[in-house]
Amino acid sequence: MKSTKPTILVVNDDGITAPGIKALISVMQELGRVVVVAPDSPQSGMGHAITIGKPLRLDRDDLYEGVEMYRCSGTPVDCVKLAVTRVFQGHKPDLCVSGINHGLNNGINVLYSGTMSAAVEGAIEHIPSIGFSLDDYTWQADFNHCLKYVREIAQQVLQNGLPVGTLLNVNFPNTPHIKGIKICRQANAKWAEEFDERVDPYKRPYYWLTGVFQLNDNGQDTDSWALDNHYASVVPVQFDMTAHHAIPVLNSWKFDV
Amino acid sequence: MKSTKPTILVVNDDGITAPGIKALISVMQELGRVVVVAPDSPQSGMGHAITIGKPLRLDRDDLYEGVEMYRCSGTPVDCVKLAVTRVFQGHKPDLCVSGINHGLNNGINVLYSGTMSAAVEGAIEHIPSIGFSLDDYTWQADFNHCLKYVREIAQQVLQNGLPVGTLLNVNFPNTPHIKGIKICRQANAKWAEEFDERVDPYKRPYYWLTGVFQLNDNGQDTDSWALDNHYASVVPVQFDMTAHHAIPVLNSWKFDV
Repeated sequence: MKSTKPTILVVNDDGITAPGIKALISVMQELGRVVVVAPDSPQSGMGHAITIGKPLRLDRDDLYEGVEMYRCSGTPVDCVKLAVTRVFQGHKPDLCVSGINHGLNNGINVLYSGTMSAAVEGAIEHIPSIGFSLDDYTWQADFNHCLKYVREIAQQVLQNGLPVGTLLNVNFPNTPHIKGIKICRQANAKWAEEFDERVDPYKRPYYWLTGVFQLNDNGQDTDSWALDNHYASVVPVQFDMTAHHAIPVLNSWKFDV
Repeated sequence: MKSTKPTILVVNDDGITAPGIKALISVMQELGRVVVVAPDSPQSGMGHAITIGKPLRLDRDDLYEGVEMYRCSGTPVDCVKLAVTRVFQGHKPDLCVSGINHGLNNGINVLYSGTMSAAVEGAIEHIPSIGFSLDDYTWQADFNHCLKYVREIAQQVLQNGLPVGTLLNVNFPNTPHIKGIKICRQANAKWAEEFDERVDPYKRPYYWLTGVFQLNDNGQDTDSWALDNHYASVVPVQFDMTAHHAIPVLNSWKFDV
């Protein structure tokens, strides 16, 4: 760990007032100087969206005394971009942590999650980055049992760094008796959508997205398995989306153009 | 290729009225039965965002005669989810094509792109999927020189399928003299943000996201290299974000919890 106090960027997708980010801030204050840049409204499910058709607001906030905080009108990824460019102005923080999300981001959720996309954006900016999520979707979620794990994982990342081009996706089961930490791969899973169709007062249909998380993976090395068995799951995530194993397959095709 | 006419889902992120999707529809009509589900407004930069806090609209549209079309109030990923669940109702299409995007989606843009996220969502639904993009950001972009490549790549995917858990990211240079097709990996690149700060009539600052695409990769096997050298780039993409090579590194850490 650096001898000077590390600087830690804290972001989330549930918005600056969420209990999850308050819990994360409290742990990070033990480890370094905290700067918060978080959305001014809930941004769940925003994935890696950025705001390109309209301008953004970035304003100082005093929500928690003694913490340098900014609220942003954009997405979680916008928050990281504005933090790096306008708040830190090129002096990169030593760590970027996102969350703690109210709800799991295991399996395929890494793609839909604003929490994880903020951490991915931190990693793209070469900042060691971690996304944290808890298996409790309520605003009243109790994060206390996760905090010693959050602290330990963040300390390890500050000490060891992370392999180039990677970040961590950390999920916690909703039990006070977490059995330990499992290093995992992303479970093969998807959402089986079920749109709830309704009719508005003008007789026109509209649809609410709902769904069921479908686990199509029997592996005991997945994040879903770890969580089901009361472990905290840690998945190393990369943002090179290339399916390298498929390149020889495609090279064998004969294109007639 | 199946003996019956294949069914092809066409989506995009520039919106249902974009010239790019019109060009893609015209090619796909030569190959099969086309169903279009596209956003009712531009959705560039939406990444893998989904709409979970408000309801969605899905309405029939008659923009192009003889084509089954629906416009959707949501994101590109919402369009695919609604197509699979409400339009096809479980009868999966044989192919999902997204685009043709007005602008490149090479390198790291695969993460920000609504075009590519729609194709990723198709692949998550086990539909062979392809995203197409052209290096011309204008509404007046001329797609004619790409169309024989679009046709050939789509035909190959219909004939051969794709390796499990993969899709294709196809980008075209903006030249009438495309030299051919290169199978590539995603270039190591990022955006160097430059927020344009302005002051509103009420003396409050606001920010426009701008930036410069930074290529940090000298490889001649990347999509950026192919495009710079006037080839169409084809990158196989996966949605398993696990950095498998980092798992042993993390397993060597000693967590003290």
